[in-house]
Amino acid sequence: MKKIQSEDDLIKFIKRKSCSPKSPYGIGDDAALLKAAPNCVITTDFLVEGVDFKKGEDPKGIGRKVLGMNLSDLAAMGAEPGQALLYAAFPKKNSISSWRRFLKGWNELAKKYKVSLIGGDLSQADRWMIGAVCIGTVKKGKLFTRSKARNGDLLFVTGKLGGSILRKHLNFEPRVRESLFLRENFPVSSCIDLSDGLGLDLPRLLQSSRKGARIQLDQIPISQDAKRLSDKAGKSLIERAFQDGEDFELLFTLSPQYEKKLMQRWRKRFNTPLTMIGDITAKRKIECFIKNQKRSFPQTLWKGFDHFQ
Amino acid sequence: MKKIQSEDDLIKFIKRKSCSPKSPYGIGDDAALLKAAPNCVITTDFLVEGVDFKKGEDPKGIGRKVLGMNLSDLAAMGAEPGQALLYAAFPKKNSISSWRRFLKGWNELAKKYKVSLIGGDLSQADRWMIGAVCIGTVKKGKLFTRSKARNGDLLFVTGKLGGSILRKHLNFEPRVRESLFLRENFPVSSCIDLSDGLGLDLPRLLQSSRKGARIQLDQIPISQDAKRLSDKAGKSLIERAFQDGEDFELLFTLSPQYEKKLMQRWRKRFNTPLTMIGDITAKRKIECFIKNQKRSFPQTLWKGFDHFQ
Repeated sequence: MKKIQSEDDLIKFIKRKSCSPKSPYGIGDDAALLKAAPNCVITTDFLVEGVDFKKGEDPKGIGRKVLGMNLSDLAAMGAEPGQALLYAAFPKKNSISSWRRFLKGWNELAKKYKVSLIGGDLSQADRWMIGAVCIGTVKKGKLFTRSKARNGDLLFVTGKLGGSILRKHLNFEPRVRESLFLRENFPVSSCIDLSDGLGLDLPRLLQSSRKGARIQLDQIPISQDAKRLSDKAGKSLIERAFQDGEDFELLFTLSPQYEKKLMQRWRKRFNTPLTMIGDITAKRKIECFIKNQKRSFPQTLWKGFDHFQ
Repeated sequence: MKKIQSEDDLIKFIKRKSCSPKSPYGIGDDAALLKAAPNCVITTDFLVEGVDFKKGEDPKGIGRKVLGMNLSDLAAMGAEPGQALLYAAFPKKNSISSWRRFLKGWNELAKKYKVSLIGGDLSQADRWMIGAVCIGTVKKGKLFTRSKARNGDLLFVTGKLGGSILRKHLNFEPRVRESLFLRENFPVSSCIDLSDGLGLDLPRLLQSSRKGARIQLDQIPISQDAKRLSDKAGKSLIERAFQDGEDFELLFTLSPQYEKKLMQRWRKRFNTPLTMIGDITAKRKIECFIKNQKRSFPQTLWKGFDHFQ
């Protein structure tokens, strides 16, 4: 009766027992390639009332988030959104007006990113559980995965991290446009979306690529909301940036020769911040620096949001 | 605060509000075609503990059923199974051994029908909610939908109906092989899988095709388990066959010119029963017959399992 230690452990167990094919056609990236249609990737993510959002939350925010988190997974693969399925279990006594609000939030992103709803499944339960499946298209040779970071590549992150529970977790902008811009213009070597926090998602990317990294802690972009929260609670700003989760930003690697060009073109095109936070190394560990001085940090920094811890 | 009257009503509402494209690229069939890969169809179905199965049920049966009901949807489209995603929310205290049992059931069908697991999502909740997404491949011009039944076509049903709650709902065989045999050999004009019972799914097929039907009630194949249940409860055998749901059989239409050939070839190939139960008419209503004598039947026959009624 071995207990489940973490989400990643359970995923490994399922992968082993189910003979999943190798990534990118199997488990191990933010989305998986279809074998019968290698121009398509597919992903699913869902939310549970009482775990991922509070009872009584405005369904509009939930609708936006359910689609947004799946679009964020597509962005992590360099995929253009196309179609979606919607599945939901919810209390019988629910009214059409909750669904109207839900679809209002969903449609905000569906219209912006041209996502058609093509099917799904509905059932009842004593609390809401609601998810989406998204299918996106990728270009040959331009698929982003977690596994191809190279020594010397620079690590970039979009947006600002931490404190998402205050607002951003319900109204974040999935980095679809940023991802498509990168795909068209730069040979991104690896990418992941920050759904569980830099503290969990950076190690996931490095593990997939069998690499390590040097992280410049003073370069980590920290959100205003992380600062607001840190003022009240005992957590440091850097802990918030690493552990809060639900940033839905992109973390990606790129050869240093493109740094200047990337920064110039990005600033002209997007308001979304883009920050270089470190580089990839051959030693399979993460080293931290502040103003180029090596610092040791508690291992507890290297965790984020895990549903089973 | 309008209450939700039925699953079909809510689906119509969602379809209208979300500008879903027309079937088969949108909502309205057992699976939907991918726009970027029109050789692929996709479907999702999930189960909720306490609604679709009892707490304490052997996870092996659940694993088999979750995949099986999605494969049944693919079969309804004439699609060959390929890949799957798995999503689940479950209590934190759950052990690896439940997952081992679950995957044992899942793998029974995954191996038989060559389905690779390529991704998914995991989270916690106070009770199990578990679903799958399946992707299958179709052949050009050989996609089955609900909407193309023609006047004079005969209505066929595989297997035997009713009483699935006793055993079959956890160990049914999705009609994948039967569907592929039909696709290769006969111009099936419409098809649906019987997940909610003939009483709901036959009207769905007829509504999609804008047709009616004459049903020979004495021809409806009734399962032994329906008979066992009817002995104990007040329901008639025909009510069980129409309303019990979770038969996971195929209901399809075919021009009468193929009847003889179909029956001959089917019997040589499958042990699965195949029964002709009626024919399609232009008048948009369902008429019932017993030994060719018209009978009137209560409207209540025309319902099946609905999560919201």
